[in-house]
Amino acid sequence: SRSISLAVIPGDGIGQEVVAQGLKVLTAVLPQDVKLETKDYDLGARRWHATGETLPDAELAALRGHDAILLGAIGDPSVPSGVLERGLLLKLRFAFDHFVNLRPSKLFPNTETPLAGRPDIDFVVVREGTEGPYVGNGGSIRTGTPAEVANEVSVNTAYGVERVVRDAYERAQARPRKKLTLVHKNNVLVHAGHLWKNLFDRIGEEYPEVSTDYLHVDAATIFLVTDPERFDVIVTDNLFGDIITDLAAAVSGGIGLAASGNINPAGDFPSMFEPVHGSAPDIAGQGKADPTATVLSVALMLRHLGLEAEAARVEEAVTADLAERPADRTTEQTGDALAARVSG
Amino acid sequence: SRSISLAVIPGDGIGQEVVAQGLKVLTAVLPQDVKLETKDYDLGARRWHATGETLPDAELAALRGHDAILLGAIGDPSVPSGVLERGLLLKLRFAFDHFVNLRPSKLFPNTETPLAGRPDIDFVVVREGTEGPYVGNGGSIRTGTPAEVANEVSVNTAYGVERVVRDAYERAQARPRKKLTLVHKNNVLVHAGHLWKNLFDRIGEEYPEVSTDYLHVDAATIFLVTDPERFDVIVTDNLFGDIITDLAAAVSGGIGLAASGNINPAGDFPSMFEPVHGSAPDIAGQGKADPTATVLSVALMLRHLGLEAEAARVEEAVTADLAERPADRTTEQTGDALAARVSG
Ligand SMILES: CC(C)[C@H](C(=O)O)[C@@H](O)C(=O)O
Ligand SMILES: CC(C)[C@H](C(=O)O)[C@@H](O)C(=O)O
Repeated sequence: SRSISLAVIPGDGIGQEVVAQGLKVLTAVLPQDVKLETKDYDLGARRWHATGETLPDAELAALRGHDAILLGAIGDPSVPSGVLERGLLLKLRFAFDHFVNLRPSKLFPNTETPLAGRPDIDFVVVREGTEGPYVGNGGSIRTGTPAEVANEVSVNTAYGVERVVRDAYERAQARPRKKLTLVHKNNVLVHAGHLWKNLFDRIGEEYPEVSTDYLHVDAATIFLVTDPERFDVIVTDNLFGDIITDLAAAVSGGIGLAASGNINPAGDFPSMFEPVHGSAPDIAGQGKADPTATVLSVALMLRHLGLEAEAARVEEAVTADLAERPADRTTEQTGDALAARVSG
Repeated sequence: SRSISLAVIPGDGIGQEVVAQGLKVLTAVLPQDVKLETKDYDLGARRWHATGETLPDAELAALRGHDAILLGAIGDPSVPSGVLERGLLLKLRFAFDHFVNLRPSKLFPNTETPLAGRPDIDFVVVREGTEGPYVGNGGSIRTGTPAEVANEVSVNTAYGVERVVRDAYERAQARPRKKLTLVHKNNVLVHAGHLWKNLFDRIGEEYPEVSTDYLHVDAATIFLVTDPERFDVIVTDNLFGDIITDLAAAVSGGIGLAASGNINPAGDFPSMFEPVHGSAPDIAGQGKADPTATVLSVALMLRHLGLEAEAARVEEAVTADLAERPADRTTEQTGDALAARVSG
């Protein structure tokens, strides 16, 4: 018998609603002999308004003791831009060394896509999670004056790039098509770009079965809409990954279906699983939010925790449910339907 | 009577072919009393292979003496990534202070789009052209070793942001919908983001008729495929502009139709007009390239030079031609057809 200690950060807006359904499905899919213990952490906009805190040290330390973290959504228009992102969400990703930000894109049957012809989309983006322009290494002088200069530094290390590129090769190697595409902008960001490209080529020699490809990020956005079938695994930096995974979500069923894992593969820190979508305050509290992205994030979590059969059961339940899903289902009804399928 | 002194940089691959058609249409549309003088500059991959030069000072000085520059395409896989981009293309944009990189997106009738339902796309991106992560302010230490660190600095100034934001407001003000969207990532790149957002808001007070909107770049890519009709004018930084304009081109007829102007609005330096596409070495020399993006870039040039009626004639010719264009036309045939229409 085994137990999972899960930290839950419902967060803001629809975060609360979707996380409840994610937990429902998780509970339903877990075998009898796996004990689930959850602990809620009240973090996000409400907490910040009430106390001014984003992520106190004591809570960061407590979070570290869990096996994994399930996060709903963080953010509200009432909080100045950047406060919760830098102070909470990115702080967690950096503190827990989530260097693999895993974002699969799959166009499920019977879902919406803006693309004509419904291409057969099934790829995964391995987005670097601890470097690049996300490091918070920026600043401004003469702020607010006509002489202001504001800089942002993208920091890239061989240490950081090698480990995420290696992870991406491993994932490509394990997939039927075994194809890995590096996305960067090495014709302009030449120093960071050469570091990425050199390591990508060098590590590739260790994976002779994996075919490789390089695309500038601008060209990658073109292919994501004109030929998304060409992609199998994509590896890219933190900012490019942010951009192309939103686009990837849009073409493959919408942001309501896009799951993600912020993963520390070695397990030195708890990994964190969250839907790609935001807190959507405009529909919060109405029972309208689609919890599927959260449920698919739970599947990624199960896989990360070694529960592969359970992960697959959740994904199969989602596939089956989407094929028959009525248009006007509530958040809770979708959670119930998925929970019924995984336990059935 | 008036004369235009035009520098022509055909460049590499299909650049030669498409520029020839652009000049053909330009010659055909110009009124009798406007004298066109062109001078070719042999710059690009061939020149670099032959002499090791990208853009010698003497040629930069000579280029400066022209009224405008028409550029085909620069680049070839045989040249290391970054050499021609940094040494020629970006060098021109920076040396001639092309701070407005203007990229219209319009879905013409009878053209291809990967989007279902053929939305009514008609917007223009004002991409900043002289700052951001494009400044070349990067470097690496311990290069090629496991301890390498490679940085890239995005530099943003109030001076640089204000002038491009102001230009974008002017353009929005002059359009029927009068709507301007700022695209950035101010929840992560907080220093650069606050500079952009603050100036965007402050300058907006001077344009009360223009309605405004802010989107993170990741969300902007979603709307570009799910609701491109929402956009009228977009203003954004150099890198985000690079990314979203390729995506914009892809959804609005493809990269074969996307025109651009690298503009120095005050006319202190010659502005440069070029198709957004690259040199496409795979189809070079086969007469297959679509010269329409170059012809539309010529229209942007005419407008910049104050020849509005001629610019409109070229654009109308393209619209009319696309509506009836046979599938297998050669580069030259398309040029001939457009030239006939504008002179007809
Ligand atoms: C909210 C924001 C900081 C975050 C990011 O940029 O990574 C989000 O867009 C995401 O993709 O998870
Ligand atoms: C070739 C490259 C340097 C250039 C850019 O990144 O600006 C191109 O992609 C463009 O959009 O004109």
